[in-house]
Amino acid sequence: MRQDEAQGAGTTFADFVADTTWADVAAQNHEAKRSILNFFATALGSAYDPAVTAALRTLLPFSGAATSGIIGRPERLDAMGAAFVNAISANLLDFDDTHLDTIIHPAAPVAAPVLALAQARGFSGQAVLTAFILGVEIECRVGNAVSPGHYARGWHITSTCGVFGAAVACAKLLGLSVEQISNAIGIAASQSAGIVENLPSAAKNVSVGNAARNGLFAALLAAEGYSASPWAIEGPLGWAHAMGDEPDLGRLTGGLGKTWEIAKNTYKPYPAGIVFHAVIDACLALRGKLGQRIDDIESITVQGSALLLARGDRPVRNQRDARVSIHHCAACALLLGAAGVPEFSDATVFRPDIVALRQKVRAALDGSLPDGAARVTIQLISGEKVSEIVMEAKGSLADPLSDRDIEAKLSDGARLGGTDWDIERVIDDVWRLDTLADVSGLMTPRG
Amino acid sequence: MRQDEAQGAGTTFADFVADTTWADVAAQNHEAKRSILNFFATALGSAYDPAVTAALRTLLPFSGAATSGIIGRPERLDAMGAAFVNAISANLLDFDDTHLDTIIHPAAPVAAPVLALAQARGFSGQAVLTAFILGVEIECRVGNAVSPGHYARGWHITSTCGVFGAAVACAKLLGLSVEQISNAIGIAASQSAGIVENLPSAAKNVSVGNAARNGLFAALLAAEGYSASPWAIEGPLGWAHAMGDEPDLGRLTGGLGKTWEIAKNTYKPYPAGIVFHAVIDACLALRGKLGQRIDDIESITVQGSALLLARGDRPVRNQRDARVSIHHCAACALLLGAAGVPEFSDATVFRPDIVALRQKVRAALDGSLPDGAARVTIQLISGEKVSEIVMEAKGSLADPLSDRDIEAKLSDGARLGGTDWDIERVIDDVWRLDTLADVSGLMTPRG
Repeated sequence: MRQDEAQGAGTTFADFVADTTWADVAAQNHEAKRSILNFFATALGSAYDPAVTAALRTLLPFSGAATSGIIGRPERLDAMGAAFVNAISANLLDFDDTHLDTIIHPAAPVAAPVLALAQARGFSGQAVLTAFILGVEIECRVGNAVSPGHYARGWHITSTCGVFGAAVACAKLLGLSVEQISNAIGIAASQSAGIVENLPSAAKNVSVGNAARNGLFAALLAAEGYSASPWAIEGPLGWAHAMGDEPDLGRLTGGLGKTWEIAKNTYKPYPAGIVFHAVIDACLALRGKLGQRIDDIESITVQGSALLLARGDRPVRNQRDARVSIHHCAACALLLGAAGVPEFSDATVFRPDIVALRQKVRAALDGSLPDGAARVTIQLISGEKVSEIVMEAKGSLADPLSDRDIEAKLSDGARLGGTDWDIERVIDDVWRLDTLADVSGLMTPRG
Repeated sequence: MRQDEAQGAGTTFADFVADTTWADVAAQNHEAKRSILNFFATALGSAYDPAVTAALRTLLPFSGAATSGIIGRPERLDAMGAAFVNAISANLLDFDDTHLDTIIHPAAPVAAPVLALAQARGFSGQAVLTAFILGVEIECRVGNAVSPGHYARGWHITSTCGVFGAAVACAKLLGLSVEQISNAIGIAASQSAGIVENLPSAAKNVSVGNAARNGLFAALLAAEGYSASPWAIEGPLGWAHAMGDEPDLGRLTGGLGKTWEIAKNTYKPYPAGIVFHAVIDACLALRGKLGQRIDDIESITVQGSALLLARGDRPVRNQRDARVSIHHCAACALLLGAAGVPEFSDATVFRPDIVALRQKVRAALDGSLPDGAARVTIQLISGEKVSEIVMEAKGSLADPLSDRDIEAKLSDGARLGGTDWDIERVIDDVWRLDTLADVSGLMTPRG
């Protein structure tokens, strides 16, 4: 595509975003609420994590009028600061939602600035949902165009694509013109950042927080007349070529308005890498079959695809390793019948009985199994073998979390996170978000 | 280099930065002052540019306690906001300093946060100079390691490398530990952004401003305990591999402390692309030779390398084109005897006599000339030919601007920028920066 022959993707996106109304996205309403409920679940769970507290302490002296709440806490910041901090807490444990085609966690960088801006300016729930659905749409389409090479090259895709979603969502919320929305998208391209090498550190949180904050910043600058190249994404010296080895630019806008990326969103039941979820499900089923005979396990063999082994056949030295360990996930599910946030804490990771059971786990390749599936075979001391295979894990598109599951995830998160927010009110407000005239109550549920 | 066999470049940089004292950098003192003087010259010249005003208007509602001045203006912002705005005004016309090996403009992203932070916290001039010299050092070394492929791939290198320099300089100023400095560098890697496709738009200013603001943010977060990978730059999924096609990692730390990148800094006499400076010099010399016979020009032939032609043989439709036009640069130098900021304004770009003279200019390849050189041959109506060749343009390392030239550039910039700052005091304060107990006076020279 020559630049002088066709309009840029940013302009096509902007036309679409400006034209889309609540009526156009109402069918995506329920999935958007599930995503936002899951966003609150993970943000509440990490509300008092040291990384969140440190970010808040850093930003407090640099905040303008404190219009916007920090989820699960009493503090407030200006909307850009609150967007940064809430995106961090929502994404901290990678327990937020997952767009499986790209492994983008869509909600954190988009919901955080949308809610912060909406609280500051008093926007309605329908405006928030419309902006959120459109932000997720563009965020994931940009990700589709550069996947999987983009992540493989070292880009943390939630950060790098999240800023586009945040910019679009905030531009929509602010009611910007087509030209301004296009400029906001182009400005986002010049702020897209975040590397995979930093994922095991707090620097990862910075790029996720920046995606949220800078998307809002892009929209505010565009509203003040800041411009950008209409070909910022796909131009020869633009984002897609700089950040992706072989971008598939047709995926940016193909079928725009006919399909919805939010419909492909999934929610994790376990705060572990998504490829381990089938291992956990199989072990939970085996625990049901074995009952008291769990104590008689001789060995545990976990079989799966090369991806499962590459990601999860590793020694466990800390919490972070445990989240991506076949051995730890299997041990917790079998011994404790759970694989939630407490099962990945230091207290559990170093429990002698868990350590002992981890040592009985062996990982083995079964090339016939697809990514995301697992077979677990237990041999008892008696010589008896029991086996369980899971092809589609709980939380996948084929076996999604129910609305009640996500509510329970939020309640559990809130309890562990130590918040004093009124959790019932958060849950109620999210389910009736499209009827709220103002979302401020959702962000201040203690009053 | 295996990660488990050697320490990361970030750690090596951090050791060096923590250990370096004023005595170690005092020999670079004068060049640092020249760079900072040039920084004020360009920032004052653009103080009231609409892009600066719009950025300031956007950030004012999002500023904490307004500790730090906006160069050339009465407004203040918090240090992060002021760093953003001052980096924009310093770099807006690409008239700031140039590190020729990388085409990084070193000062804007580094001096802006250093001065904003120093004003907020009352640091001394020696502390500012030490931090600035170290920031420029790391900024340019990171750039060296990925040049020229990084820029060619679409990365705006002043933005993408500037954030490292800003982080290092602010970390030094804050007196951070080795571990914290290393973390600040790693956090910078997750904030590095900015694409070439956006250079002809205000979105370019956003990435330059962010480099300054986010480098300071990285240092503040590191001070609060935020961590990063020690291999954030050169790890397999780190910055250099994600952003550079064939990084030369040996250039990161080779000779660290023995050579100084600030010593390679240059300052432009003309606000045009650096490859056009020899064209301007040659035409100014020809104007001197021709006197009144300028009116008798039949044709002008400009010869240079393929780079010169690729960058500058183009139609002129606006100011931005004029800055990178062989034809416009030649016409202004010949007809007006100048190629300063006014010569690239709309008023000059569309002057009928300039338009007419531009049409007499023809660009031609001379493959024997190196990049940065030019030969200009004028044929008069009489048939007489006069020619001038310039191998090293004014402002190059071989023919640098004098201290008085930079002072004059600052005075001209201040006059054109419409500031009411006390320019004599700015010049005096920069030259005696190493004796100032506090830099606040430099940032508030009206009082």
